[in-house]
Amino acid sequence: MKSGRLYVVGVGPGDPELMTLKAVKILKKVPVFCFPKGKEEGSSVAMSIVSKIVSLDGKEVIEAHFPMKKVPVKDAASCDVSSSWEETVEIILSHVLKGKDIAFLTLGDSVIYSTFFYLYDRLLSLLPSLQVIIVPGVSAMSASSASAGMPLCLGSERIALLPATYEEEKLKDTLLSFDTVVLMKINKVFDRTLSLLEKLGLVSSAVVVEMASTEKERVIKDLRSIKGETLHYFTTLIVKK
Amino acid sequence: MKSGRLYVVGVGPGDPELMTLKAVKILKKVPVFCFPKGKEEGSSVAMSIVSKIVSLDGKEVIEAHFPMKKVPVKDAASCDVSSSWEETVEIILSHVLKGKDIAFLTLGDSVIYSTFFYLYDRLLSLLPSLQVIIVPGVSAMSASSASAGMPLCLGSERIALLPATYEEEKLKDTLLSFDTVVLMKINKVFDRTLSLLEKLGLVSSAVVVEMASTEKERVIKDLRSIKGETLHYFTTLIVKK
Repeated sequence: MKSGRLYVVGVGPGDPELMTLKAVKILKKVPVFCFPKGKEEGSSVAMSIVSKIVSLDGKEVIEAHFPMKKVPVKDAASCDVSSSWEETVEIILSHVLKGKDIAFLTLGDSVIYSTFFYLYDRLLSLLPSLQVIIVPGVSAMSASSASAGMPLCLGSERIALLPATYEEEKLKDTLLSFDTVVLMKINKVFDRTLSLLEKLGLVSSAVVVEMASTEKERVIKDLRSIKGETLHYFTTLIVKK
Repeated sequence: MKSGRLYVVGVGPGDPELMTLKAVKILKKVPVFCFPKGKEEGSSVAMSIVSKIVSLDGKEVIEAHFPMKKVPVKDAASCDVSSSWEETVEIILSHVLKGKDIAFLTLGDSVIYSTFFYLYDRLLSLLPSLQVIIVPGVSAMSASSASAGMPLCLGSERIALLPATYEEEKLKDTLLSFDTVVLMKINKVFDRTLSLLEKLGLVSSAVVVEMASTEKERVIKDLRSIKGETLHYFTTLIVKK
């Protein structure tokens, strides 16, 4: 029997219409969906986006319980979270070996901070012949930039993308040296980041976008107005000088 | 009469199926397309992508002759290229004022190195009430990463995006300090960049993707094999440590 293929599909940042034609075509055809369900996301946003465009009737759906922790890939085998990954790997392979195609859904763009790649090497080491097709999508970073009406880069500019939770000294260096800096995971450290931006005189060059492209989207240009607020996990801060 | 709206639509990196549902919906509806036609691109790739999905029958098509030069927005008014921009601005506004919606097509993602933003401030200064809707798309960077099977970032990694033509010292600093570095416009300076990567011991961590997601796509993992070759304008280099 011919093995199934594994599609890794970026479903965009939130607006179902920001899915690509390719994503929709694949998701209509593939019989098994696998989506990450981590602590921070609560219910799966990726699945909810897809369900607005693609019928789930007759689809088999696998919830992959990922710890959304920052564990370097090389340490994954030795840490306490490896068992849930291993389980997801086994489920994916068992379907593929039965000849079923499977789609792994990732929110936003499949190549930017996607949990899938924690499984990638392990999948290939167990089944080197596995066909993996990665389908890129619209990133949360781009949707935030579009909603804010603030382009990420022009001409010969340099842009940096990093988690706001990065060590302060390096964060500061990056803010000083790049034309545009995009900070993800800002919800955890907003007040601290605001102080840093104030110190560097960059507050008026920054914008915060919460839940870009969704019905609950907020574009916040006066950063001081949200000091102390609890922000959603899907919040991005863009600094453009 | 109600003014028309201006949609700035990212049509993706090359594969027409990487257009979003939203882009297709807007482009089917809008009667006027404006697309940039620069020296470096030759015939417009954005237009050719769209024509594979959306019928051009009955559409009015405006070619905007942009100089694809690195001119800071603030200097645009004073440099010799401003007249062609000014002409494009006038054409866009004349349509909008006649109540016609217009779509400005941008290759890849509309917020990453799009020529549109050279017009943005000028358009808004002449017609502050102009409704501009920016529709993000799949970037060439993401398509290249997907085709290479090499994710851009994981966990708490930092990524930098910049033109390969950047000054060597800063390029070197960026290559040394970031987890992932994406270099655009590599075609102009490939051999020089290869030498730099060799000096830094990063050649085996790099991949070159030419014309990502198109039928002519090439993924080149042995960088030395293309030394001296003339690469296409749509070529991206990704270094991932």
